[in-house]
Amino acid sequence: MVENSTFNFSPIAVARTPYKEKFAIPRQPGLVTAAKGKVEFLSPYNNPEMLRDIEQHSHLWLLFIFHGTAGQGWKPLIKAPRLGGNQKTGVLASRSTFRPNPVGMSVVKFDGVETHGKKTCLLISGMDLMDGTPIIDIKPYIPYSDALTEATSEFAPQAQQHDIDVSFAEQALAALSKVANARELKELIFQVLKQDPRPAYKKKDTSWQEYGMALDSYNIRWKISDTTCVVIDISPN
Amino acid sequence: MVENSTFNFSPIAVARTPYKEKFAIPRQPGLVTAAKGKVEFLSPYNNPEMLRDIEQHSHLWLLFIFHGTAGQGWKPLIKAPRLGGNQKTGVLASRSTFRPNPVGMSVVKFDGVETHGKKTCLLISGMDLMDGTPIIDIKPYIPYSDALTEATSEFAPQAQQHDIDVSFAEQALAALSKVANARELKELIFQVLKQDPRPAYKKKDTSWQEYGMALDSYNIRWKISDTTCVVIDISPN
Repeated sequence: MVENSTFNFSPIAVARTPYKEKFAIPRQPGLVTAAKGKVEFLSPYNNPEMLRDIEQHSHLWLLFIFHGTAGQGWKPLIKAPRLGGNQKTGVLASRSTFRPNPVGMSVVKFDGVETHGKKTCLLISGMDLMDGTPIIDIKPYIPYSDALTEATSEFAPQAQQHDIDVSFAEQALAALSKVANARELKELIFQVLKQDPRPAYKKKDTSWQEYGMALDSYNIRWKISDTTCVVIDISPN
Repeated sequence: MVENSTFNFSPIAVARTPYKEKFAIPRQPGLVTAAKGKVEFLSPYNNPEMLRDIEQHSHLWLLFIFHGTAGQGWKPLIKAPRLGGNQKTGVLASRSTFRPNPVGMSVVKFDGVETHGKKTCLLISGMDLMDGTPIIDIKPYIPYSDALTEATSEFAPQAQQHDIDVSFAEQALAALSKVANARELKELIFQVLKQDPRPAYKKKDTSWQEYGMALDSYNIRWKISDTTCVVIDISPN
């Protein structure tokens, strides 16, 4: 009987992304296009034949395990960040990570296949995945069946716009000038902070509060008051 | 290490659909809108709180197990029906059911929540799932992040149109007249056969070949030659 069965999944790959911690990961894919990463295949799935013709698709679905929160279990009701974190919504009416089966799906831009010796990787961008996320499946995005223009969602009709004004202090610019990929890193920091990663209840805070995050191989520190954000330091971690 | 971990998933629900066998299931969701069914929750997930606010979404993603084919394993290359079944494509560049982890994702129209005593069901339509499919997760379809109008797919740019001319023979119409939901059943049969469920290599066959399928609680028999299809019998099974 289906009721009593369990299904065992093994990761076929691991995501490598600039997001080293849960804080500051965008809440949906596609918001931070400057986030570039890879999908590294694991043995015995490290076989380029599995990817034949994949370049015919511009976008891919990744099915993955919410490994950062999977140990914390799930609840029937969750607090939706979109509703300020106070109102509760059914877990299956949300994309919360605290699900009965902690599996996520996320669409990413497909940028190419890379081979290092015997290792095969997919190059991807715009992902909202934590570094090290186990991938259990990859499927092409098929526009005619996946892009439902007639679908509606009262709960989340559009992406949230935070209109955060992001600037870089002198110390941060000096640190950037010593980085090989300065332009890319600056754009990544800019796009991530533009999303305003603060918890919803902090967003009206007008005192200058300081935050930090590990992004790519750097520690980023910034100060934010209401909608004005200043990057104050960038240091290797 | 991620490499050596396995993840155990338990079904939270089971799909109840008119498709009693793999043959004749549409190849994508949304093609047969007359297919109506249910998602029946299993204990301990039979809790209506999990569904609070779900009516704010017009469509839902179902993540499920390809239970009909999961026992048959997987291969790195699969024969794509779209390419006539002769050319081979990488399994991860396809939506084939024979995947390393046999998990599927499918979008369905959400028609409401139904409660029978303590049993909770989601009413759905347009699904491409076999009856009895184990569901491991349900997520709302979020148009702004899921409906990628810029995505492209050379492999499958649009739904295949078979332009099959479907008619009903006298014996089939007589059988239909005795059925309580005759109009709905006729429309379902019509939409399913319009998809031309024959294997690709048979589609140019001009001899009148007979086929049968179990659909809803009936056995349907039809004859087809090239693009002309006649339903010859409908009997309870």
